[in-house]
Amino acid sequence: MILIISFVLSLFSFSHASVLDFCVGDLAGPIGPAGYSCKKPSKVTADDFAYSGLGIAGNTSNIIKAAVTPAFDAQFPGLNGLGISAARLDLAGGGVIPLHTHPGASELLVVIQGSILAGFISSSNTVYIKKLNKGDVMVFPQGLLHFQINAGGSSALAIVTFSSSNPGLQILDFALFKSNFPTPLIVETTFLDAALVKKLKAVLGGSG
Amino acid sequence: MILIISFVLSLFSFSHASVLDFCVGDLAGPIGPAGYSCKKPSKVTADDFAYSGLGIAGNTSNIIKAAVTPAFDAQFPGLNGLGISAARLDLAGGGVIPLHTHPGASELLVVIQGSILAGFISSSNTVYIKKLNKGDVMVFPQGLLHFQINAGGSSALAIVTFSSSNPGLQILDFALFKSNFPTPLIVETTFLDAALVKKLKAVLGGSG
Amino acid sequence: MILIISFVLSLFSFSHASVLDFCVGDLAGPIGPAGYSCKKPSKVTADDFAYSGLGIAGNTSNIIKAAVTPAFDAQFPGLNGLGISAARLDLAGGGVIPLHTHPGASELLVVIQGSILAGFISSSNTVYIKKLNKGDVMVFPQGLLHFQINAGGSSALAIVTFSSSNPGLQILDFALFKSNFPTPLIVETTFLDAALVKKLKAVLGGSG
Amino acid sequence: MILIISFVLSLFSFSHASVLDFCVGDLAGPIGPAGYSCKKPSKVTADDFAYSGLGIAGNTSNIIKAAVTPAFDAQFPGLNGLGISAARLDLAGGGVIPLHTHPGASELLVVIQGSILAGFISSSNTVYIKKLNKGDVMVFPQGLLHFQINAGGSSALAIVTFSSSNPGLQILDFALFKSNFPTPLIVETTFLDAALVKKLKAVLGGSG
Amino acid sequence: MILIISFVLSLFSFSHASVLDFCVGDLAGPIGPAGYSCKKPSKVTADDFAYSGLGIAGNTSNIIKAAVTPAFDAQFPGLNGLGISAARLDLAGGGVIPLHTHPGASELLVVIQGSILAGFISSSNTVYIKKLNKGDVMVFPQGLLHFQINAGGSSALAIVTFSSSNPGLQILDFALFKSNFPTPLIVETTFLDAALVKKLKAVLGGSG
Amino acid sequence: MILIISFVLSLFSFSHASVLDFCVGDLAGPIGPAGYSCKKPSKVTADDFAYSGLGIAGNTSNIIKAAVTPAFDAQFPGLNGLGISAARLDLAGGGVIPLHTHPGASELLVVIQGSILAGFISSSNTVYIKKLNKGDVMVFPQGLLHFQINAGGSSALAIVTFSSSNPGLQILDFALFKSNFPTPLIVETTFLDAALVKKLKAVLGGSG
Repeated sequence: MILIISFVLSLFSFSHASVLDFCVGDLAGPIGPAGYSCKKPSKVTADDFAYSGLGIAGNTSNIIKAAVTPAFDAQFPGLNGLGISAARLDLAGGGVIPLHTHPGASELLVVIQGSILAGFISSSNTVYIKKLNKGDVMVFPQGLLHFQINAGGSSALAIVTFSSSNPGLQILDFALFKSNFPTPLIVETTFLDAALVKKLKAVLGGSG
Repeated sequence: MILIISFVLSLFSFSHASVLDFCVGDLAGPIGPAGYSCKKPSKVTADDFAYSGLGIAGNTSNIIKAAVTPAFDAQFPGLNGLGISAARLDLAGGGVIPLHTHPGASELLVVIQGSILAGFISSSNTVYIKKLNKGDVMVFPQGLLHFQINAGGSSALAIVTFSSSNPGLQILDFALFKSNFPTPLIVETTFLDAALVKKLKAVLGGSG
Repeated sequence: MILIISFVLSLFSFSHASVLDFCVGDLAGPIGPAGYSCKKPSKVTADDFAYSGLGIAGNTSNIIKAAVTPAFDAQFPGLNGLGISAARLDLAGGGVIPLHTHPGASELLVVIQGSILAGFISSSNTVYIKKLNKGDVMVFPQGLLHFQINAGGSSALAIVTFSSSNPGLQILDFALFKSNFPTPLIVETTFLDAALVKKLKAVLGGSG
Repeated sequence: MILIISFVLSLFSFSHASVLDFCVGDLAGPIGPAGYSCKKPSKVTADDFAYSGLGIAGNTSNIIKAAVTPAFDAQFPGLNGLGISAARLDLAGGGVIPLHTHPGASELLVVIQGSILAGFISSSNTVYIKKLNKGDVMVFPQGLLHFQINAGGSSALAIVTFSSSNPGLQILDFALFKSNFPTPLIVETTFLDAALVKKLKAVLGGSG
Repeated sequence: MILIISFVLSLFSFSHASVLDFCVGDLAGPIGPAGYSCKKPSKVTADDFAYSGLGIAGNTSNIIKAAVTPAFDAQFPGLNGLGISAARLDLAGGGVIPLHTHPGASELLVVIQGSILAGFISSSNTVYIKKLNKGDVMVFPQGLLHFQINAGGSSALAIVTFSSSNPGLQILDFALFKSNFPTPLIVETTFLDAALVKKLKAVLGGSG
Repeated sequence: MILIISFVLSLFSFSHASVLDFCVGDLAGPIGPAGYSCKKPSKVTADDFAYSGLGIAGNTSNIIKAAVTPAFDAQFPGLNGLGISAARLDLAGGGVIPLHTHPGASELLVVIQGSILAGFISSSNTVYIKKLNKGDVMVFPQGLLHFQINAGGSSALAIVTFSSSNPGLQILDFALFKSNFPTPLIVETTFLDAALVKKLKAVLGGSG
């Protein structure tokens, strides 16, 4: 038997050398267009493939009565290069995830608790809106403006996942009113009222 | 005002013509390597982007005490071409999702209820196993053998999502024992016992 | 000599059969996630690879004093599947291309005439703005909100190209105010004033 | 036992519906940028995944004393969408595969018999040349001009494979001298002699 | 003439600066999801694009009477980023390449000598099996279980190539019986006998 | 109001951490198959997304009476990873961009001034030629030989863009006559005259 084992051990010896089944992100290494550098396979453990941050409810004591808790590659480096990521949406009564896009990914939402009114707007300016109940799923195609609103009386919870390990998140109100986008340029490129822009910048903390 | 509107309507008129933000699958049309043909945009409604099939618990009255309910492009054609899909895992007490692979996708699992012991095996023959509680997330890199087992006393529920709208699913036991794979070839390519192979084929319905 | 030629003709005979150097779009055929069906190679002529639509100035007699003339795959089917497309921007004095995104492509702008103030907003709510003169180039990364404004006294002209044959175009004001997006939902997901929303819908032709 | 089997049969019933592990090309159906339409899975047999055309030596009785026998998706539709294909190179004594490119794929050559001198030219105009013996492998990066020459006294045989199921093949001499490329334009864009161009067109069958 | 040359030298001077026709892997540098870092172009020689390791027969004096000799990017860094790789299969009389998958690539097999019985199992649990003779080619779609068996009396030799420079290799028996996969979990997720699992672990060197 | 702002600031705090909307190339860092390493987001400014090098006419005082001025990722690092790049073509009277390929990209040409005769040759040895006037657009599918000639009396100017941030450029005459490609091998693989090859090497500076 020992003889047989030694035969086997000398066989396929390469399979130890070329482990690129995965590329757990080394957040301290160089980053490239395809993602983070890979942690050394010999230092990778099972903990690198699991993440517990989505188990904790987000704090919804804010003006939108909602919270987004991401599990993107920056939070969960085991996702690096695998083309998938997730986030948790907590919506208190009256909670709203304002209009936003993910520049680099499509999104799939699953309602875990409560009910949610969700929708997106196409390039043809058609709005697709659905009321979703517990267990319902909705998909938001890549890069299009979309929103989620608590449609029931009590708290709602959803898990959303993305077709990228780093989908990005551009919240329309933050892009306009929490950024350094100069007010005259906002007015010129959106037709919004300067007074309204200034008021919303005051609320959200924008400058310029 | 009417003048202004007519100016606007003549502007960007092309945006109505080239709607390919999405490609809702037309299951009756030709299929290509990139997926189903697209349903005509004019026939697409909000219903095409939502799916309610994951809201219903799978039937776990079977030998594995578990059920997989998919929302792949074949069930939910709105996913076609978007690089994402989902499934629901129901695990009764003692339930097991047997060893399997998804040939074309990585998988992200979120525990919704109960606790689950999950793991995968790398190309280097290292096994990465984690016990996951409610809210925990685990990723299974593309194409590798993995499993999920109910690790608590009561029912467990998980939502899994994939980095493809058609991830595929190859269950090891079904590939071997529920297929037409001839028993002598199974024995020769796995070193399993012919008697065992025949016994498992009888249970699972294999031939050959 | 004749002998030699016949030898040659029998050689590499396959190269006539498998012409998929290109896939000129057949706009009447089925569409899939990767684009239009291919026109038969035998019917393809040099005309399929050229397009003259960008040679004509767009009509800027409208409220934005600007026009976008696209050469996407729907207008120029020779681009189908080649991962590139173009458009022409005409900006009269005071002209503005309002805030918009391309859900599926990065954009490269070249100023042909005049000067243009252009910018985009990142996921981190940072605004990157540049004044561009004739010959200057600017890139707008995929899926992010961006704008272009005539920054000189006279007309400006730019050619923009995209990293997709069908980049899509979502104009923020059109998505909000020229669509069927119900006013109460706009207010709830953007914090804008209902009165303002209604006013802009009246101008742009939105409903709901 | 019968009870158990029926349980199993009702489980995972979806796996019969969504078979897109592969997409055997239906050469009669519509073609798109990603390849041929898929043959119905129910009509696919093991024969679709095998091809015997590379077992026959190509006819090298021609001016280049060489032959290329392809197994691209047009000849072997089972490759459709799988990102790989092959060809057989036969080189009689003195045989030459003239300078050529594959517009859409990198190439890997394995010498099966004899010895071959092979090389490619980079974008920096550096030539990388190797003499390869039986069992040696060489890679030619995508889209670069390369050649293979019999470097021994007797016949040589190589198998080449490509990183695409439809790599394309542009043979420099055929593009110039076996096409309808007008002689004055060839002279103008290559600095070659008109007399030489006409002579080579006469040999290879070009017009224009 | 000297004048002309100096004109030319000042032309296209950029083509020396941006050499990324290829990215020969620097095995000592950082690795990312897309592969190894690139060796400096100035240090690249023709030797980087050739590999002689497949010219030597693998040692088949082992229990499977077979050997796999890889030319993946870890062995042949010139393949890095080019989407192709190869391996040599040696099958002595009675030799078997046991059931395995390549998590990230499709495979193309060419029989160079002898005859081989090969097959794969689809997601629908259909087995596609072919007897292949010298010169025959077979394709194994990405991620599916497949095997190769010497089908003749004498030695067989095949060259296999892959649609990735790092296809991975997961051998079923090694994943189960040569790994640290705990025996109770194997039994629970495969329905195999604990006694059989322990026996095969003893032969193959597994633990747990 | 202060209370509200602090609520907002604690919300979505992650969006500051994971900025990978773009990956401005760090030309001094490691390079991988997907491009350059990313400059630190905190060091990125608006200047990184703009480039002024295409505003200057290339020097056409050379034998081809033409100049190519590139804006690839090596010159304009803001393009890194975004799948697009550009170049400026200056053609004096009688100017010619000789036959060339881009190994990794399709090209889109827009005529800005003058008129241009342009064409490409397919894998089937068909030549597609068009005379283009100001404003006309033409596409050259990936990897195929193509050319541009000034077709008017005065200077012509074109902007070309590519479906890659690093398209590569292989000029046929330079590959043959400005490289170290040994003359006997050129003759053998192209059927050109040794005398002609030597003459052109003398003009263009080739060796070997």
